[in-house]
Parts: sequence; C-alpha cells; structure tokens
Amino acid sequence: MTIPLRTLAAETDREALWDAADAAVEARENDVLAFVNLEDRTARRTRLRQTVDGPLGGLPFGVKDIFETADLPSAFGSPIYEGHRPAADAVCVALLRAAGGAVYGKTVTTEFASFHPGPTRNPHNLDHSPGGSSSGSAAAVAAGMLPFALGTQTGGSVIRPAAFCGVVGFKPTFNLIPTPGMKTFAWSLDTVGVFTHRVADAAFVTEAMAGRSMAAPAPGKELRIGRCKTPMFSEADDDMAAGLDNAASLLSSFGYAVSDISLPEIFAKAHKAHDVLNDHEGALSLSHEWHHHRDRISPTLRDIIQSGLAYDAETYDAARQTMKAARLALMAVWNEVDVLVAPSAPGAAPLGQTTTGSSVFNRLWTAMGVPCVNVPGLSTDDGLPLGIQVIGPALADAKTLAAAACVETVLNPSN
Amino acid sequence: MTIPLRTLAAETDREALWDAADAAVEARENDVLAFVNLEDRTARRTRLRQTVDGPLGGLPFGVKDIFETADLPSAFGSPIYEGHRPAADAVCVALLRAAGGAVYGKTVTTEFASFHPGPTRNPHNLDHSPGGSSSGSAAAVAAGMLPFALGTQTGGSVIRPAAFCGVVGFKPTFNLIPTPGMKTFAWSLDTVGVFTHRVADAAFVTEAMAGRSMAAPAPGKELRIGRCKTPMFSEADDDMAAGLDNAASLLSSFGYAVSDISLPEIFAKAHKAHDVLNDHEGALSLSHEWHHHRDRISPTLRDIIQSGLAYDAETYDAARQTMKAARLALMAVWNEVDVLVAPSAPGAAPLGQTTTGSSVFNRLWTAMGVPCVNVPGLSTDDGLPLGIQVIGPALADAKTLAAAACVETVLNPSN
Repeated sequence: MTIPLRTLAAETDREALWDAADAAVEARENDVLAFVNLEDRTARRTRLRQTVDGPLGGLPFGVKDIFETADLPSAFGSPIYEGHRPAADAVCVALLRAAGGAVYGKTVTTEFASFHPGPTRNPHNLDHSPGGSSSGSAAAVAAGMLPFALGTQTGGSVIRPAAFCGVVGFKPTFNLIPTPGMKTFAWSLDTVGVFTHRVADAAFVTEAMAGRSMAAPAPGKELRIGRCKTPMFSEADDDMAAGLDNAASLLSSFGYAVSDISLPEIFAKAHKAHDVLNDHEGALSLSHEWHHHRDRISPTLRDIIQSGLAYDAETYDAARQTMKAARLALMAVWNEVDVLVAPSAPGAAPLGQTTTGSSVFNRLWTAMGVPCVNVPGLSTDDGLPLGIQVIGPALADAKTLAAAACVETVLNPSN
Repeated sequence: MTIPLRTLAAETDREALWDAADAAVEARENDVLAFVNLEDRTARRTRLRQTVDGPLGGLPFGVKDIFETADLPSAFGSPIYEGHRPAADAVCVALLRAAGGAVYGKTVTTEFASFHPGPTRNPHNLDHSPGGSSSGSAAAVAAGMLPFALGTQTGGSVIRPAAFCGVVGFKPTFNLIPTPGMKTFAWSLDTVGVFTHRVADAAFVTEAMAGRSMAAPAPGKELRIGRCKTPMFSEADDDMAAGLDNAASLLSSFGYAVSDISLPEIFAKAHKAHDVLNDHEGALSLSHEWHHHRDRISPTLRDIIQSGLAYDAETYDAARQTMKAARLALMAVWNEVDVLVAPSAPGAAPLGQTTTGSSVFNRLWTAMGVPCVNVPGLSTDDGLPLGIQVIGPALADAKTLAAAACVETVLNPSN
C-alpha cells in the first residue's frame, strides 16, 4: 500500500524524497523520456534546496512544459520556444512552491498541448503511447519517478494520459486552479489538473492551488452512480466496453446503486461544438506564432489552426450557446445521480508513437467544465491499463473525489 | 471634422502617418508622459518599416504596457518587470499587426493595471489625472499623438480614462477581443478595449481583432434609450448629474425616446461582488510576484492582494453566483430598452496625480461582460471633459456602437 502524500510530506525528510526521485529517474528516464532538458543531479539539487517550508514538505513534482517557470526554460513543446526563459512562474507553480512543493523538472508536452507528440513512452509498455498532451507528467508519475505532476486539459489531455499510464488524473472544475502562466490554447476550455498515484493524493495537492478544502465525507452505499455511455460510445473498443461493464458490476457487488444514464441529444451537439471552440480559440491564441513562425508549426497543428480560422463568428457564437444549453441540461442529470462513470478513453494506449490517442471521451466533459477523475485499476489481457472516469457536478470537486475514492477501492481491492 | 480612420488607413501614405505621430509626440509628449521607454525617432522608424500591408494601412497605435510585445520591453507598470522582454506579442497586438497596424510604442499603465498611478498627465489640463489604468493610451489619443491605442478594463480602466481625457473608449463584450498575452489580473473580468477619437473608428479597429463585423445599420428615432442612474448614483458629483440630465434632454430633443431605468437590488449586490472577484483573482494572479518580489509591490496593491487572499472559497463562489443572477436580470432590461446611458465616472478628472479616480460607475458593467462605449462631448465649466457611457447587451457590440454613434452626434453637434 502506497503511503499517502499527506503523510509522506509531513514525515519524510525532503532530501530523502529527492534522493528517491533521483534513483527512480536514473532507473527509468532513459526509457520513458518524460522530462524536457532535465538538469544534472548537482544543478538540480542546488535548485531544489531553495524549496521553502510548507505543507507539501518538499515533495518533488513535475511541471508540464506548457507552464512558464522562472528558473527553468519553458518551450511549450514547440521549437519556436526552444530555450525560452519566462520572467515568472505560472500561478499554479507559484502556489505549489509557496506551499513547500519542489519543482523537480519540466515534463514533456505535445506541441502547444495539442496533438503533435513528444518523445515520451508509456512506462507500462515502451512500444505504446503515454497519451497526451500531458505525456511526460502522466508517464513520470506512472514510472514512479515523481509523486505528483501538473498537467492541463483542453480536450482530453489529463484524463486520457492518466488512463493510458494507469495513474490517477484529476481535471477539476474549470478555473478551480488558476491558469495564468499556462500558454493559452483555448481560453474557454483550458483547465489545470494533476497526476498522482491515489485519489486522496490528488485532493491533497489540489488543495494547495485551489485555496479550498478538497475533503468530503466518504459517501456510504447510498451514493448514486450513473453508468454513462455518452453519445460517443460506439468509439469504445471491446476492452473498454467490457471494462465499463466490469466496473459497474463490481460497484453493484459492493452495494452501490448503479443506474444507466443516457444523455439527451444536446450533448452530441455539445461534443461537436467543442471542436469549434478548441480550434477557433486555439488558432487565435497562436496568432503571433502563426504570423511569424509558421514554418516551425507542425502540419497537424497548422491544419487545426486553418480549420479554426475558417469558423465564422456566427458558428463560434452558436457553439458557445450550445455549451450553455448543455450545461443547463446537465443540471437535470445531477437530480438522478451523484456522479457518472464513463470510459476515460476508447481503450488502452495505442501502439506506436505517431498518435497520443483519441480525446473523444473527454472533450464533452472539458467543455461542461465539470470535475473528472481517472481511476486506474482495470487492465487489458496484455496488461495495459484501462481507465474509468468519475464525473461530478461543477464545483463539487471534493464530493467527486470522494466518490472516485470509492470507485478506486472497488477497482483495486488489494490496495 | 476628423477623417475616419478607415479612410485614413486606405488613402494616406504610411510614412506620412508616422511623420504626423512623430510631430505630435514632439509637441506634446514632454508634458503628457503617455509613453514608456519610447525609442528614439530613428530606431522607431526602422521598426515601424517592418509593418506589413493590410486594412489598417500602417496606422500607428499605442499598446498599453500590460500587453506583451516581442520587440519592445513589457514591464506591466511594475519595477519587478523593468526591461522584461517577452517572446511573443499578445494576441490582440499580433492581430492588429497582421492587419497592417504599426506599434508606435508602449503606453503607461498603472502598476499591473491596478490603482498605483504612473506619470501620465491629462492632456486637457496637466494638473489633473488622465484616469487609469490605461492612462497612457487614453492620453496619447487625447493629445492627438496617436489615432488609436489598446487598453484593458478589469474595473473601469478603459471607460474612466476615456471619460477624463475626452476620447472614445470602447470596452467590448467580455472575451470579444482575445486576452492571451495580457498580464492577467482578474481572469473573469479582464477585457481588452480601444481608444479612438470617434465611435466609428473604434468599430473599425475592433474588427481587426474580433474577427467579426462591427457594422450595424444606424438606428432611427425608434432607438429606445434608458437613462440609468445605477445603484451608485449618489457618488456622481453635481457636474455629472447635470451632464447626464443634459445628455438625456439633448437626446429627447433629437427625437429619441429616453426612459428612466432603475436596476433591481441584485445589481447593488453585483457591484459589491465585483470587488471579491477582482481582489481574489488579482491576488492569485500575482502569486509569483507576491512570494518573490513583495517589497517591489506598491502598498496600495499589497492591500488589495491581502484583502483578496482573505476571501474564502464560499465568499468567492457566492460572488460568482451573484454575477450569474445579475446577468440573467439584465436580460429583462433589454426588453425595455436597446441601450442604457449612464455616467462614465463620478465627474471630471480629479486634480493631482495621486489617484486615477474612481471606477464606481464601471465595475458593475465590466462584471456583466457587456459592451460599454464612452462618448465624449460634454464638459465642465472649467473645460474638463465629462463622459457619458452607452451600454448594450452582451455580443450586441455592433448595435451598441451604432447607438453610441447616435449619442456622439447629439453631444457633438458641430462635428
């Protein structure tokens, strides 16, 4: 059983925490390639010793390289920003540091947190993708190199890599963790999240950034769980379809009431509207890069920008209205159940490094701005992790985490 | 009569536009102090010649120094960022440049676009404040040094300085102009806006950034105008009270239907809730500066940060709920009138440079996210400008500008 981070932070000498990270990095980083420009051990330790005292007790963490950091280069996964040195830490990084967290290194992001992959490989099987866009953060935690790491989700960039790498990924309510200092992609979708080994750890580290308690009483057997196949369920593979059924059966056998929830038509529209917001806002956010460094943008991202620029104001405004209507419709769902469980991804991590997989099971929830927690525990016959996500109402982050902790117990009986 | 910017951009040689700006800057800048680190004439002209062709035809513009620029230092009005060189242009700057606009220089902002004043003086009377936080942009346009300039409004930072300096200020619908690359203060309030001499010019330059037409048919005499004293009207001085009555009488005499609109109680609550969002989000946005450079933050801003950090999550969430309720209540107002007219500020520009004046007539509308246009034309007996703002429904920016153009005609009969 893993020691809770809260305990580790309170009771373990911080040099010992950094030694442990160093040892794991030496053992795994050459294969996993989770970090960007990791300093040598001496330089790193010198910097780590500047860590202040606080509740995080010197816990080392990874920072997705989509965040600005004052003392480490920040390239946003793009050759345009190679060696870029920002003047300040992103707000979430500053808050974690002020709470006693120690930035161990920057982790690999896909290009501008979009789709063009970085070098990172899946710690469970190096031939498979770690998912993206928070590839390095998910992989560093999964490989045991770091106790926690920061990520961001605009489509499926926290929940998907967490699922593929078999770790907890928490994408909170929109704006629960401040975004300034993150390189903006789509301002109405960009959400800061975290990767940890256990659900309780995600609550613990989020508290340091959200300025509010993430503790909620453990729900009893009266917790109402909705199995939600979402309008995109035809994209789930056989492993995932069986995994979701398996999770539902296990939850029932533990005494929880699991009902089936179908979402009304507006959610299929909202799923499509996500693309409009994502591509249009993303294209605008990268205006400087588009006009001055177009040749150093990947063809994949150039296509997204071009499609984003092609949407007119009416289409964009209509997409915003659709989101508003879907958010209202979602309120009715919470009268029936406390949380939803749904696939975190279409299946396990895809083979090869040319794609980071599909965000088809994530985009809707990002657009709804609601908290999502990937819960690991299930796997394919080949031993690759399969993720189930727990979804709750906006601002009910603590309750959603508490429900996810129940699902975690059910899916990981030996923990 | 001023030549419309659209015509000027299309018909005037760009070197002539820059010569005109240079001549005005030579005549006025020593008194007005609108710019930050203005390059010498030769360096400036070399840089200006990199301007691309486009609909803005080389029009020189000012960029409030709260925006990042790739080729000019960006200090955000703070000694912490003295000499700071960002890697990219803010999105709005990149869009204006791509449309053929020419960045003439950075303009003075108060510290982090909050309340601590910069050196800029009011071009109408150097003993008076130009308002803030977009002090330099408003003053540079008012002094005839630039045809337009960029500002931002989180409380009253576009409408107030426009009113004090006697120019048009346009604060569009929230997020109509993308904010990335602006130093964030309060993410749910920060809004990019513009300063121009005429309302039609504000529409013209906004089009280049908003990616949508800002043209609307000129409203006829059926335009329904609501005189709105707002819950804060007791803070208006005698000049402003008389000014608003005067504007209403003039509008009536031109044949427009002017009715009195009182806002329900929720708007007084929303006005107060603005402070919670402003201070709390502002405090978080400046986390890095607070933890690493506290001694270089002004006492005024330190107080705001401290009060912002003292708000707990319940208070913050309640403030957000209040805003939502007020936005819904505002929908009902638009059934009665097309636009509101209200004071832009409590009166004319205050004497002295220790304060940039009060945003008491602006904060509510910023929080509502609705378009506001300061219309100049009225003045005090001492010749200081008095501003009236025209307020319209969210996303009805073009219609609001068209209505403001009617008010402009009424208040400036000799134009």
